[in-house]
Amino acid sequence: MGTINAIEYRADKLRLIDQRKLPKEYTFFECATCEECEFAIKDMVVRGAPAIGAAAAYGAALAALQYRDLTGAAFLAKMEEALDLLNRARPTAVNLMWAIERMKRVLAGVKERSSREVYDALKKEADAILEEETSKSVTLSDYGNELVPEGAVILTHCNTGSLAVPGPGTALGIVRAAHNAGKKISVYADETRPRLQGARLTAWELVQEGIPVKLIADSVAATLIRDGKIDLIVVGADRIAANGDTANKIGTFMLSVLAKRYGVPFYIAAPVSTIDFECRGGDDIEIEERGAEELTRIEGEQVAPDGVEVYNPAFDVSPAEHITAIITEQGILYPPYTDAIAGLKR
Amino acid sequence: MGTINAIEYRADKLRLIDQRKLPKEYTFFECATCEECEFAIKDMVVRGAPAIGAAAAYGAALAALQYRDLTGAAFLAKMEEALDLLNRARPTAVNLMWAIERMKRVLAGVKERSSREVYDALKKEADAILEEETSKSVTLSDYGNELVPEGAVILTHCNTGSLAVPGPGTALGIVRAAHNAGKKISVYADETRPRLQGARLTAWELVQEGIPVKLIADSVAATLIRDGKIDLIVVGADRIAANGDTANKIGTFMLSVLAKRYGVPFYIAAPVSTIDFECRGGDDIEIEERGAEELTRIEGEQVAPDGVEVYNPAFDVSPAEHITAIITEQGILYPPYTDAIAGLKR
Repeated sequence: MGTINAIEYRADKLRLIDQRKLPKEYTFFECATCEECEFAIKDMVVRGAPAIGAAAAYGAALAALQYRDLTGAAFLAKMEEALDLLNRARPTAVNLMWAIERMKRVLAGVKERSSREVYDALKKEADAILEEETSKSVTLSDYGNELVPEGAVILTHCNTGSLAVPGPGTALGIVRAAHNAGKKISVYADETRPRLQGARLTAWELVQEGIPVKLIADSVAATLIRDGKIDLIVVGADRIAANGDTANKIGTFMLSVLAKRYGVPFYIAAPVSTIDFECRGGDDIEIEERGAEELTRIEGEQVAPDGVEVYNPAFDVSPAEHITAIITEQGILYPPYTDAIAGLKR
Repeated sequence: MGTINAIEYRADKLRLIDQRKLPKEYTFFECATCEECEFAIKDMVVRGAPAIGAAAAYGAALAALQYRDLTGAAFLAKMEEALDLLNRARPTAVNLMWAIERMKRVLAGVKERSSREVYDALKKEADAILEEETSKSVTLSDYGNELVPEGAVILTHCNTGSLAVPGPGTALGIVRAAHNAGKKISVYADETRPRLQGARLTAWELVQEGIPVKLIADSVAATLIRDGKIDLIVVGADRIAANGDTANKIGTFMLSVLAKRYGVPFYIAAPVSTIDFECRGGDDIEIEERGAEELTRIEGEQVAPDGVEVYNPAFDVSPAEHITAIITEQGILYPPYTDAIAGLKR
C-alpha cells in the first residue's frame, strides 16, 4: 500500500505536498511562518478539512517560533493575530476553527511561560492533532468498509484521500480499506469542477495504488446512477450540522438527489471533528464563493470570454434525508441524525 | 443587437467563424474548396447539426467551381467524390446527410448542363438550406418566447445559439427572442464539460449581445434549481425519439431529474428535423463515446494522471416524463409526446 504523507513537520518547518501542481509535478511546499501556512491553506497547496486543521495547528506553532524574541503582552498580541489570520484562511471547513480553538486553549494554559515552552506546547498539540486525525481516519475507514459489498462499484467526488486527510482518508480511506480487504472494488471518480480535485488528486492517488478507477465528467454520474451501474456513493464532508445536513464540495448535492431518486446508498464519511454541534441545519452553513478565474481559466488558459460574470460556490449542502448513513471514527450513524449526533462523544 | 453570422458565403468563398479559437480569438476560416469545407466540419471549425448541414451544402457548390474546367462523366465523377467526402466528415449529425441528399438531387436534375449552371443551381440550393434553417430557428424562437415569463432567470446547457444554428439558435434563440422582447431575462450558462461549449461559446454569444449571463460549473445548477433561483430550463437536442425521449449533450439528464424533482419547467428546443420518427425510445439511441483526452487534457495541459481510464459519453438521454414541452418550428408539443410527434408534418 502506498504511503502518501501530505503533511509532515520536520526541522521547524511544515512540509506539504503541493497539491496545486499534481498530477504534473510531485513537489513539496515548505512553510517556515504562519503567514506561509495561511497562504498554503488559502491557495489550496493543502486542502481537505482535516488536513487544513492540522496544517493550521502547525501554523500556530510556527508563529510561536517567529515571535520568540517578544515577551509578555507583545508576544501574546502577535500570537492572537497569527491565530486569527489562520482562522480566517478559509471559511467553510469547521476543522480549521476547531484546530485553532485547541491551539488557543493550549496557548492560554502556557502563556506565562517562555516563548520556547509555548512553542513546544503548541508543536506538541499540533503533533497530537495530526496523530489523532491519522488514527481516526484508519478507524473510520474500517467502519466504512463494513458497508462495502464484495465487488462494489463505488462513486466518489472530489478528493478525500491521503492528500485531504492525514492517514488513508475518509471516503477514499474506505475505498482503500475495501480494496485492501480484497473485495475487488472499483471506483468512478468525478473530475470535480472547477478545481478538478477528482482528476488531479483522487485519480492520482488511486492510480498510484493500483486501485481500478475510471475518471468521468461530473455530469456523467447521473446516467450511471440511473442505470444501476453504481452500488454505493461515498463522499467526504466539510461541515455536518447537528441535524445531519452536510456541506461538501460543489456537486455533492446533485449526487444526493440522484441517489435518493434511484435508490443508491449515499454515505458521508467524516471524522466527528467535522460535525458542527452548534449548527442546527444546512441553512446556517456559510458557503464560500471563490474567484471567477476558477471557471474562466484552466492552467492559465482562457476558456471563457472576457468580462463574463461567474457564480462559483465551492460547496453545496446535501439534506439529511438524502443521506443513508454518516460514517465516523466513533461508528456509523443512521437516521434520525439529530439523536445519533447528540449521542456522540465530543 | 449583435449579429453573429457563423456561416456566410461571399465572393465564391465560405466564411466561417473559427469556433476552435473562441473565446480567445474572434477570427474567420475561409473555404475555397470542398476539401477545406470537409476539414472545417471534421475539425469543428463549425459545429452544431444545422450549421454543419449548411456548411456541407456550400462545400458541394464549391466543388462545382473547382471542377468547372471538366465536363461530362469526368466532372460528375469528381462531384460524386466531393459529395461523399463531405458526407463522411462527421458520423452523427443527421442534418449533414440530409443536406448532402438535397444537393445530390439538385445535381441529378442539372447534370447535363454547363458546370457554371451546375454551380449556380448548387449554390442556390445551399442558400435555400441556409435560409430555411435561419427561418426555422426564428419561428421556433418566437414560439419558445411565449413560454418565457417577464424577468425570467433561464438555465441552459451547451451551445445552441447562432454558432450552432443559422439564425438566432434553438434554446439560445428563445433566450434572444425573450431578451429582444424586453422581458429583462437573465441566463445561467452551464460551462458544459468536457468540451466547455457553455463557457467558450454560449457565454461568448451572450456577452457579445449584452444579455446578462452568469457562468457556472455544471454541478452548481442543482442548488440553484432547489433554491428556486431558476424559472425555467431550456436546452437543445441531438436526437428526439418518437416517444419524446431526448438525447442531448452529457449533463442534460441530470438537469431533467432536478427539474422534475423541484418543479421547474424543463423545455427542449429543436427543429423537427432533429426528431427521429423511426426511433421508438431513448433505449434505441446510440450514445457516442469520445476520447479520454477530453478529460485528461485541457488546452493541451495535463489535468489527470498518466494511464488513468476514462469513461466519456458525449450525450445522455432525458426521458419524456421529465420534459415539460418540446419547442419546434411547427409549434409547441406537450405530452403525450407520442401523439404530438405523430401529428407533425415531416
